[in-house]
Amino acid sequence: MPTFLNTRDADFEARFTALLGQKREDSPDVDAAVAAIIADVRARGDAAVLELTARFDRLELTAGGLAFSEAEIDAEIAKVSAADRAALELAATRIRAYHARQMPEDALWQEPTGATLGWRWTPVSAAGLYVPGGLASYPSSVLMNAIPAKVAGVKRLVITCPTPGGVVNPLVLLAARLSGVDTVYRIGGAQAVAALAYGTETIRPVDKITGPGNAFVAAAKRRVFGKVGIDMIAGPSEILVIADGENDPDWIALDLLSQAEHDESAQSILVTPDAAFAARVVAAVEKRLETLARRAIAGASWRDFGAVIVTRDLAEAAALSNRLAPEHLELCVADPDALSLAITHAGAIFLGAWTPEAIGDYVGGPNHVLPTARSARFSSGLSVMDFVKRTTLSKMTPEALAAIGPAAERLAASESLEAHGLSVTARLGALNGAPNGGRP
Amino acid sequence: MPTFLNTRDADFEARFTALLGQKREDSPDVDAAVAAIIADVRARGDAAVLELTARFDRLELTAGGLAFSEAEIDAEIAKVSAADRAALELAATRIRAYHARQMPEDALWQEPTGATLGWRWTPVSAAGLYVPGGLASYPSSVLMNAIPAKVAGVKRLVITCPTPGGVVNPLVLLAARLSGVDTVYRIGGAQAVAALAYGTETIRPVDKITGPGNAFVAAAKRRVFGKVGIDMIAGPSEILVIADGENDPDWIALDLLSQAEHDESAQSILVTPDAAFAARVVAAVEKRLETLARRAIAGASWRDFGAVIVTRDLAEAAALSNRLAPEHLELCVADPDALSLAITHAGAIFLGAWTPEAIGDYVGGPNHVLPTARSARFSSGLSVMDFVKRTTLSKMTPEALAAIGPAAERLAASESLEAHGLSVTARLGALNGAPNGGRP
Repeated sequence: MPTFLNTRDADFEARFTALLGQKREDSPDVDAAVAAIIADVRARGDAAVLELTARFDRLELTAGGLAFSEAEIDAEIAKVSAADRAALELAATRIRAYHARQMPEDALWQEPTGATLGWRWTPVSAAGLYVPGGLASYPSSVLMNAIPAKVAGVKRLVITCPTPGGVVNPLVLLAARLSGVDTVYRIGGAQAVAALAYGTETIRPVDKITGPGNAFVAAAKRRVFGKVGIDMIAGPSEILVIADGENDPDWIALDLLSQAEHDESAQSILVTPDAAFAARVVAAVEKRLETLARRAIAGASWRDFGAVIVTRDLAEAAALSNRLAPEHLELCVADPDALSLAITHAGAIFLGAWTPEAIGDYVGGPNHVLPTARSARFSSGLSVMDFVKRTTLSKMTPEALAAIGPAAERLAASESLEAHGLSVTARLGALNGAPNGGRP
Repeated sequence: MPTFLNTRDADFEARFTALLGQKREDSPDVDAAVAAIIADVRARGDAAVLELTARFDRLELTAGGLAFSEAEIDAEIAKVSAADRAALELAATRIRAYHARQMPEDALWQEPTGATLGWRWTPVSAAGLYVPGGLASYPSSVLMNAIPAKVAGVKRLVITCPTPGGVVNPLVLLAARLSGVDTVYRIGGAQAVAALAYGTETIRPVDKITGPGNAFVAAAKRRVFGKVGIDMIAGPSEILVIADGENDPDWIALDLLSQAEHDESAQSILVTPDAAFAARVVAAVEKRLETLARRAIAGASWRDFGAVIVTRDLAEAAALSNRLAPEHLELCVADPDALSLAITHAGAIFLGAWTPEAIGDYVGGPNHVLPTARSARFSSGLSVMDFVKRTTLSKMTPEALAAIGPAAERLAASESLEAHGLSVTARLGALNGAPNGGRP
């Protein structure tokens, strides 16, 4: 059974705090193994990657076969049905249109002092996307990672995707092609992350690595962080649905189950001021669980981590949601726009009962890589911003330096950084004799 | 002696690659000690913090004395000279004005499908800034961390600053007050980071921790990452100066030394197409090193990590700079704006000989917390963006769901996520009979 809470209960705060602190993931400690793999790839390059791929993926490759050739990709893509291709193309088009609006703007302005200030955004030069193999090899995630990179202007974009036993998902290759990915390597695990970060004879290093993966991949990303940039380390998926009593219980049940079916550690929470409606949703979940293909996974998630919280009103529901800072938040209420203004922490908000969260997973346009485990308190979903960086710009004139330089000298003195101060003093001293802008 | 390279030399590429790969920092492995400190603070709260502070900072406190009182802050601030206060106020005003322009904009638009999409930015609720004690207790860094947080709208902003033996820098407290910091705790080390991340009886937890610190602080920030957000882990400071021969060698020498004096691991690099000018700068550095107060530190940095690279032309200089991706880049050339367009990776650019890097450390306006160790390839300096996060918004209408829902059903089926598809199917099935927007 899921957890049942009611804000009117005396022990509510204690039980809600327990829910907040609940640990849903037991990451195996693979750090030592990952450190050894990374060291091996750094030391031996391709040879290490090939050996590790043979061992972990039961796949014998040569260096020349690490990447899919264009002909191989063509052959795989040919297997995709027209309907699947059309759906993927629609998704790619919509994701591209949404992310194109995220491109940040440069700025440059002149101050009254004469100084010019501003900043300029530039793309990361090369990025690598990790795509899991097997069942979790989601073409939608390829789009969600690759399209923002390409919109940002990343010139070289590569994918690593393990192909255990040589099997690849054709839709992953199609998604890569639709997104403008340059190269797809058929390797995975910590060895793929190491190859992307440090490079080998065949695989050129990248500057940023994104994408989901298992415990080995997550540990490897943590280890190479600093050498390259990484995105977040995502935890199990979550949904919180705030619903009033005027909803179809089956719709809400399916939305809760669409997270639960991801993973036994996923979490689905219903928050409603209507206790009778809550009971109807719970019944609808049970009924759907009887037939759902992934009922074992979804049932375990719902039983172990599901929760139903009955509140006094919608305002209280919003306040609890902010404390949970959910990855996905559905507002299935009469005026979702108004309620959304009370939401301060959430990865993505789905407004109104006609917006099931699954739309956001595929075709809505916003990114489906979102902050989990309450990290929406301080972080955002994947976006174009993850593939650009800002360079600040400053340009003083002699007059501007005369105006603000003395304050810099003063502060440098207070911090005992003499050369800092002297670099200003020398210029100010030359000011009278240097009408040519300081160029002697 | 610094490293001397010339791009015309046969061994240039090998030697430049060695410079790129040079390791400038040997972080002591303090991770086990830090893990124990964090566990202790989580288990025993205030009691652990007080004991650790007594041990490491030789300072006996009570829980009630962990924070500076307003009266204590007033008394310390009264010690600041009028000139120092005016300089700090000028810096704060300019940093605030620059960062106010960084506040990102919300977006909301309606598509032809009828769907509404967009995003909304919200501030982190509470942030903690770590300020080192002793010599590296820089008031300018307080401004650079605190002001972007306040511009972003962070409601609760606290500082932890160790006060070994009870000694505090009055300018740090003044900078905190000018920045709108709410509380200053006189604690430091891993125990301060743990208290900020997990909270104690006296110290409320925050959502984001920023600011520089020693190896213990850096290790603690890495460990609490995920529980809270952190900023970058900064390495030793760096400057790269691209200068033509038409500069005053002493100005350039002082700019190089203003990084070198920070730290024996700091790095200062001159890149110039003019070999004779390079020699004049080297001589000027040597001359300044004779009298500089921090000549031991600056001299060691220049000797061990300084470099002078003579290039064929300025375009080649820019290309090398991009490979180094320096934290600070000065362009002391006739047309710095034009040359800046060739720069793809740098934390901050200082345009023209009248813009010494030290201006950016204090009063220019842009942030002085910048990516080091070549991480400007994939990351940006501290900004308002570090204290806000984006929530994506999606709102379907029945018509919009009818238009794009079938593609989501198709993709869900291809990923074997049945409930995802059903959450769309159930709504599409109800469409004809549900003119009231799906609310039964």
